[in-house]
Amino acid sequence: MSSRLLSFVCRTGRRRFMSTGIKLTTVEVNDKTGIATLTMCRPPVNGQNLELLLDIKSSINEIKNNNSRGLIITSASPKVFSAGLDILEMYKPDPQRLRAVWTELQNVWCDLYGISVPTAAAINGHAPAGGCLLATACEYRVMVPNCIIGLNETQLGIIAPKWLVSGYLNVLPKRVAERALTQGRLFTTDEALQEGLIDEIANSKEEAVDKCVAFIGTFAKVNPVARALTKHQFRADNLRQFHKEREQDVDDFLSLVNRPEVQKGIGIYLEGLKKKANKQ
Amino acid sequence: MSSRLLSFVCRTGRRRFMSTGIKLTTVEVNDKTGIATLTMCRPPVNGQNLELLLDIKSSINEIKNNNSRGLIITSASPKVFSAGLDILEMYKPDPQRLRAVWTELQNVWCDLYGISVPTAAAINGHAPAGGCLLATACEYRVMVPNCIIGLNETQLGIIAPKWLVSGYLNVLPKRVAERALTQGRLFTTDEALQEGLIDEIANSKEEAVDKCVAFIGTFAKVNPVARALTKHQFRADNLRQFHKEREQDVDDFLSLVNRPEVQKGIGIYLEGLKKKANKQ
Amino acid sequence: MSSRLLSFVCRTGRRRFMSTGIKLTTVEVNDKTGIATLTMCRPPVNGQNLELLLDIKSSINEIKNNNSRGLIITSASPKVFSAGLDILEMYKPDPQRLRAVWTELQNVWCDLYGISVPTAAAINGHAPAGGCLLATACEYRVMVPNCIIGLNETQLGIIAPKWLVSGYLNVLPKRVAERALTQGRLFTTDEALQEGLIDEIANSKEEAVDKCVAFIGTFAKVNPVARALTKHQFRADNLRQFHKEREQDVDDFLSLVNRPEVQKGIGIYLEGLKKKANKQ
Repeated sequence: MSSRLLSFVCRTGRRRFMSTGIKLTTVEVNDKTGIATLTMCRPPVNGQNLELLLDIKSSINEIKNNNSRGLIITSASPKVFSAGLDILEMYKPDPQRLRAVWTELQNVWCDLYGISVPTAAAINGHAPAGGCLLATACEYRVMVPNCIIGLNETQLGIIAPKWLVSGYLNVLPKRVAERALTQGRLFTTDEALQEGLIDEIANSKEEAVDKCVAFIGTFAKVNPVARALTKHQFRADNLRQFHKEREQDVDDFLSLVNRPEVQKGIGIYLEGLKKKANKQ
Repeated sequence: MSSRLLSFVCRTGRRRFMSTGIKLTTVEVNDKTGIATLTMCRPPVNGQNLELLLDIKSSINEIKNNNSRGLIITSASPKVFSAGLDILEMYKPDPQRLRAVWTELQNVWCDLYGISVPTAAAINGHAPAGGCLLATACEYRVMVPNCIIGLNETQLGIIAPKWLVSGYLNVLPKRVAERALTQGRLFTTDEALQEGLIDEIANSKEEAVDKCVAFIGTFAKVNPVARALTKHQFRADNLRQFHKEREQDVDDFLSLVNRPEVQKGIGIYLEGLKKKANKQ
Repeated sequence: MSSRLLSFVCRTGRRRFMSTGIKLTTVEVNDKTGIATLTMCRPPVNGQNLELLLDIKSSINEIKNNNSRGLIITSASPKVFSAGLDILEMYKPDPQRLRAVWTELQNVWCDLYGISVPTAAAINGHAPAGGCLLATACEYRVMVPNCIIGLNETQLGIIAPKWLVSGYLNVLPKRVAERALTQGRLFTTDEALQEGLIDEIANSKEEAVDKCVAFIGTFAKVNPVARALTKHQFRADNLRQFHKEREQDVDDFLSLVNRPEVQKGIGIYLEGLKKKANKQ
């Protein structure tokens, strides 16, 4: 995945709900369709630091409460959906802050995974790790060509937690999932379509959003209460398991990240990024 | 699905076990193959009212006890396998009777899902909702062209209960199942084959039954005790979960059906059926 | 599957760890790749008697402790990977010995299924029953053409235990698995590839081993601790369930094997083998 720092504009036209303060996400509700679009706007790669995670959580809850008919999540960056957890949060971390980061990542996942309205991801760029987390928490995924998606945590020396894997297994066959998780495999757009990790390919962000709108439109004649109960029933076991294990999971994550060899690996990775940036 | 009232003849030739009283099902055991065929005969669409459900249950138990080598379930109607729960049972329901209806639907499912002998559905017509329930409780499904099958409960404002979903998940990938359940999707015969919801297409009811007989024939050289233990072991978790939740499930269903908006929806639906019938 | 007694040579060149005593397996570690190859050498068909099982277990543990980068399991026989449990162990069995046999089969499965390093099976011949058990406990499977693989226990009047089925379900869709288990289905190499029971076909044992080496090579840049934690997390539920049920499972197996009709079936089968052998 490109690590070049990309300048980009966060377009917020047609927004009905304007947020106050420096928002790292925007929520627009389309007047005609009633569908809310949550756009991540933390340049250059929507690295998930504590502030972005808090903002995504608050936007999901805004959508929960504004009677939207559906939720589409996408990115304001032209080439990256989200690069996942901001690696700076994991390097020589302050324990309290790192604990908060992981807790908010959990909150974002369970709020998005469990929301009643139909959800779709317009994956308009790369979506490794935490980017894939957001996409697989949704009910539908449309992706632009020539990008990568996947839970590649093992490549960084950490692991995809069990609750995240449970969502991966809603989408991928077990055989494919186990191999991909142990390899830290990143699927190309074409591979992702073939394995079922995404549902459609679109040639642009606009087309991706349109296809997400069409997906959410398939529920137009479905009773929304029955739909919500059916979705909750389907996902309840995973959520129950998540709530049982979430505290232990925070402890496990912190102790893994603080292993000397993991810290060393992250350090080398960051050094490489810096050298690349200096060359450009 | 066609809602036209179809006259049809319930053929019961070659029957070994003749039932007394007004039977809404027949059971025939083929002398040569030893396979029992359970035929639903409640014109026009095998709407599952209390009486039909009690009759199906009793026929399944008859087959359990008559040393049949397998069970094939099919319909006497030329165009409909079963339209599912009789919607009249759900409209302005008597609580005691509706409780009995749902309890017997549960009984039919768990008796068919758990029976030791090989089971196959010759789906000779449409199979929405409770029709799909019967088909997916079996081990094999053969369907005629140009029909529909699926758990479309959300379209009616109700939900497919967890035990029924557990059987759906024996057949469909999770990704396909969740989407189909939330959408209340009805698969065409071709779509059902492609996703694995059915196993074969047959051009007529006769051919469908023949293919079911062939499937059951694949067990000819398999030790029947080992076969039964293997089937039970495979399905035991779902059945255990079902028995744990079945009482709560009845309460949930009754309270859902009695919601004013669900009653209103059913009323509108029935009004529509009446108008259609008057036009013809 | 051919029951002809095959003479064969157990090649042990390039071995780093030579075992003492009459070993029924060999372990070679390739100096260049660091990958250990475990070869079963009990002519003619690697029938899993108590001694072979003990030896496989000890070789797995040797590999666990010798810092190998991966494990490949294969057979010294030219035509058979492993024919599964030695049927003589089940005929008129000594209860204590049969109990030990099944316990060691369990040990072999859970040690191979749960080992941290990447595992692959170079299936250079037929792999019914216990042969399939070894293959499906691995993370990757490469098989030579025109052979058979599957859990065909019901054909012998016994059943594949739940823990073994749990591993089968890591690989096959539920729908395919239930049918295959009840039928005791043996898949040809081509069928196995199509259903996902194997991952690749190779034209010779050497090519199969090479492909296994290539698979293990995909982990070269993956952090081994993160890889191991991810694998364990994925397989932990199955292993936990296994440990809960393993004692009951031994009792169940013994009581099943000792059923008069199962003993009679095995007797007839052995008689058939003897006649075949005499003809040759």
